[in-house]
Amino acid sequence: MDFRAPSREQIFVLKHIAKIGELAEHERFANASEDMVEAIVEGIGQFAMGEFAPLNRTGDTVGAQWKDGAVTMPDGFRKAYDEFVAGGWASIDGPEEFDGQGLPYSLSALILETCGAANFAFTLCPMLSFGAVEAIHAHGSDEQKARYLPNLISGAWTGTMNLTEPQAGSDVGALRATAEPVTDGPHAGKYRIKGQKIYITFGEHDLTENIIHLVLARTPGAPEGTRGISLFIVPKNHLDADGNVAEPNDVTCVSIEHKLGIHASPTCVMAYGEKDECYGEMIGGEFGGMKAMFTMMNNARINVGSQGVQISERATQQAIGYATERVQSARAGSGSKDPVAIIEHPDVRRMLLRSRSLTQATRALLYYATSHVDRATLGLEGAKARAEILTPLIKGYGTDVGNEVASIGVQVHGGMGFVEETGAAQHFRDARIAPIYEGTNGIQAADLVGRKLGLDGGEAMNSLLAEIKLSAGDEPALSALAQAVEDVAIWMSGGEASIDDRLAGSYPFMTMLATATCGMLMKQQHEIARSEPGDGSDPFLQAKLVTTRYYLDHLVPEAMGLKPAAMSGADILYALDSDALSA
Amino acid sequence: MDFRAPSREQIFVLKHIAKIGELAEHERFANASEDMVEAIVEGIGQFAMGEFAPLNRTGDTVGAQWKDGAVTMPDGFRKAYDEFVAGGWASIDGPEEFDGQGLPYSLSALILETCGAANFAFTLCPMLSFGAVEAIHAHGSDEQKARYLPNLISGAWTGTMNLTEPQAGSDVGALRATAEPVTDGPHAGKYRIKGQKIYITFGEHDLTENIIHLVLARTPGAPEGTRGISLFIVPKNHLDADGNVAEPNDVTCVSIEHKLGIHASPTCVMAYGEKDECYGEMIGGEFGGMKAMFTMMNNARINVGSQGVQISERATQQAIGYATERVQSARAGSGSKDPVAIIEHPDVRRMLLRSRSLTQATRALLYYATSHVDRATLGLEGAKARAEILTPLIKGYGTDVGNEVASIGVQVHGGMGFVEETGAAQHFRDARIAPIYEGTNGIQAADLVGRKLGLDGGEAMNSLLAEIKLSAGDEPALSALAQAVEDVAIWMSGGEASIDDRLAGSYPFMTMLATATCGMLMKQQHEIARSEPGDGSDPFLQAKLVTTRYYLDHLVPEAMGLKPAAMSGADILYALDSDALSA
Repeated sequence: MDFRAPSREQIFVLKHIAKIGELAEHERFANASEDMVEAIVEGIGQFAMGEFAPLNRTGDTVGAQWKDGAVTMPDGFRKAYDEFVAGGWASIDGPEEFDGQGLPYSLSALILETCGAANFAFTLCPMLSFGAVEAIHAHGSDEQKARYLPNLISGAWTGTMNLTEPQAGSDVGALRATAEPVTDGPHAGKYRIKGQKIYITFGEHDLTENIIHLVLARTPGAPEGTRGISLFIVPKNHLDADGNVAEPNDVTCVSIEHKLGIHASPTCVMAYGEKDECYGEMIGGEFGGMKAMFTMMNNARINVGSQGVQISERATQQAIGYATERVQSARAGSGSKDPVAIIEHPDVRRMLLRSRSLTQATRALLYYATSHVDRATLGLEGAKARAEILTPLIKGYGTDVGNEVASIGVQVHGGMGFVEETGAAQHFRDARIAPIYEGTNGIQAADLVGRKLGLDGGEAMNSLLAEIKLSAGDEPALSALAQAVEDVAIWMSGGEASIDDRLAGSYPFMTMLATATCGMLMKQQHEIARSEPGDGSDPFLQAKLVTTRYYLDHLVPEAMGLKPAAMSGADILYALDSDALSA
Repeated sequence: MDFRAPSREQIFVLKHIAKIGELAEHERFANASEDMVEAIVEGIGQFAMGEFAPLNRTGDTVGAQWKDGAVTMPDGFRKAYDEFVAGGWASIDGPEEFDGQGLPYSLSALILETCGAANFAFTLCPMLSFGAVEAIHAHGSDEQKARYLPNLISGAWTGTMNLTEPQAGSDVGALRATAEPVTDGPHAGKYRIKGQKIYITFGEHDLTENIIHLVLARTPGAPEGTRGISLFIVPKNHLDADGNVAEPNDVTCVSIEHKLGIHASPTCVMAYGEKDECYGEMIGGEFGGMKAMFTMMNNARINVGSQGVQISERATQQAIGYATERVQSARAGSGSKDPVAIIEHPDVRRMLLRSRSLTQATRALLYYATSHVDRATLGLEGAKARAEILTPLIKGYGTDVGNEVASIGVQVHGGMGFVEETGAAQHFRDARIAPIYEGTNGIQAADLVGRKLGLDGGEAMNSLLAEIKLSAGDEPALSALAQAVEDVAIWMSGGEASIDDRLAGSYPFMTMLATATCGMLMKQQHEIARSEPGDGSDPFLQAKLVTTRYYLDHLVPEAMGLKPAAMSGADILYALDSDALSA
């Protein structure tokens, strides 16, 4: 099943949910004219269909290969990456002073979304680079920016993010990599880096002539925990005085993981300083590591949320394609004995409509989140806090939906879905990583109730809830859900609920709030689709009316069932000690 | 993580939910004394831990291998299978006249459950043989029974079930394999079989010296559709006059599938009569094929439901084991900065308790179903109809739960869950087949609303619902759910809902009814655990009180959210024609 970029849908959501036109009214994003936006959406769609999508299967079956420290990508990947760079797709939201295009993040997120739907694993490479650009741009010195940003922004080099160590996964503060100041020799002023990092996405590959690693480490005598962490720029190859690639640094890819999915994304074990000759530059000041990392991670979490949308889109297309072609059994109650395409059977249609509806709802949530990042860049009131609330929602709910829809995709294929050649199983396997990395979804839920609920004294949450309630209008299910979410929020924020109680209910609360927010965005789209000029014959708008209605009538009520769990408190979880739980 | 057979739990549920003691009061099952039952549960537990569990990983990584028509199982499988046969585990519920042990099906289902939790893929082999035994016992001639049953019951030979052809999956009636009567020569009286079958589980292997294939085919001039189908016994190797294995039949394994999971279960493409020399015996009379197949399929569906329980048990154990050992981050709000085992973090505990609770709930549903099959064997009133209603529930809900719990298992492992070496990913991959085969879960839902809802003029459903309501007592959530299920059942059974409407709501209805039934069984177990003698210090009973309470307070309310979808009708599904849906 060939991938088709959902350009029309993307433009609709950019226009009506991201309100990209409003962004373009600001000087900062004046480039994002309607014509430009449409050209980008159409252009990246063509590119993704033509260059990235055809490599998705070989990316899975061949995968990235490790040998003697080198990682080889499957045939065709280097050429496709070169085309990605040549097309300027890497530099959409890069700052113009470093040869970027200065467009909104909403659009660069759309680049990732489109490419990732075409080739989920491959798109992790530019995604990580975007994070490196952000961190260096926000925290680097002028010299660092000048040396690293142009090549990272163009995509000529790629970037990585090195947090995790075997004993330090979700608990970043437990990391042990070290960085000692170098006082003399050719690397004076830099730091000698030493340590092993795991789960480094695209830590090594053969796509570009350099890779810029951002590595968290501890300076001598640094305090324990996250307070003592600093960030370092550690290039795979050093740069000469002119900024050109020079001799190799002491950076080794020790191995890559054998994973359930995303086989085209090498997940590397990286060794820094095995020969004590790994040198890097500090960025963001001593102990500024966590702050710099959060810069990288915030958009990274939204971008992982996007991966949920990506896999949903791809899996839904594939399932609909199969269901349209596969003829099996007569339609019950039709009186005819002729077998029909399975898309005609009610429960298959339910699965497909559910998939489409969930995909569109999470796409709307994604664009709503990315556009608030742009609004925050513009300094618009409340935008930053709104973006911060939306981040765990799109990361947590978006990736849960990605897994559900990929699983439905397998189910629609029946026995063929379990056979690898069909491709449905690949989406199911690929999707499974997204709820895990960039902070597990449980951590997203904890972030939501731990930090986001009380943001600005609770005002940030209150204003979102008020908007949802207002927007719900005469939709009974959405109104009821909005009220239920508010009930939970009030209970969690009050003195009655302990920290444990809040955490115990955090996951169902996250799902409820995300569903209510999506419900609002789907209601808005429903109304827009209904009021669009025309004779009602536009199939896109017809479909939009149905997918939005389905979300409001089916998905929104489902989330109501989570309220008791959200408010039931932690006592039941600790009624048994952990030994009894494992007995 | 080593597998531990949940013997105590199994005995508890056999005693209190299956009420195995009541069965043993009947002459037919007098063998099933309390001592015997406990010996079987403990014995198969020991066997599964010692012989089957250690092969689970190699079954996945090496898998069954096809070469030139032969299928080789990984090292150790043949020996383990021989031990399975030698231990008498294959013959538990086989009729005594054919050297079986004549025990209840509830116990042979428990054999499968325990072995399958230890080694999911391998256990498909005996599972399919059990189906062949049932079909031959119910429909074979005396001579056929005498020739085939003893070796199938002992496990010396294995059996298969051949329905599917490329164009005939869920629509069995579309099959094209042919069977022509042979009038002379050494095979006179038999049929010449010709056709290709796909998805044949353990269609070929090197575990036993013969394989007895049960093959659906059409005789010359047979009517179209399911009415014209007959069933044939087609041995891999012919038998001589004494019933010993003789010359090979014209049966070939053409290839095996490359699948997402269950790699130790060869999924075969079988060619019958490529040289026009494949001979088989008709069983169950001309056109009796579907009837005979339904005999096989009914318990097969329950046995696949059991696979949901199997993978849930295994995945939960593995997740709890990991969460107990993995130390990461201090407990929020504890005031301590010392990292703790992740099982101490509220959301991880939520995932584990949810997994345990779902596993126990579906196990109870499984035993409830298998014990009603036994009650039906005894001719007890209402038992057959009850078993028929429970079959789609355990198959559909049980396997959905298996997938959910296996996915939670991956999540609890964090990044390690996505790395294949950990083993959590294998459970996630293996689990995915169960909602597909033996009738997709969508077909189970259709069966529930299409045939089971109206069984005995609706009396069968009414009596189950009445029991749930009665059992709910003062449990508000369970009472509410029982009422909601009844509302849906009444709406679906009335004239207002069309066939399409019923099918549109069938899946949420299935989940609701299964949850309500599990809720009843969990409530009963809660009360039993509370009233057991003792000082309250028994960790098993303590845990049972908590898992049952969790199900009633968390899972039961969740299912309430499905009511609107169950009753929303089919209009929304057909508001778009299928072209617009794929636009």
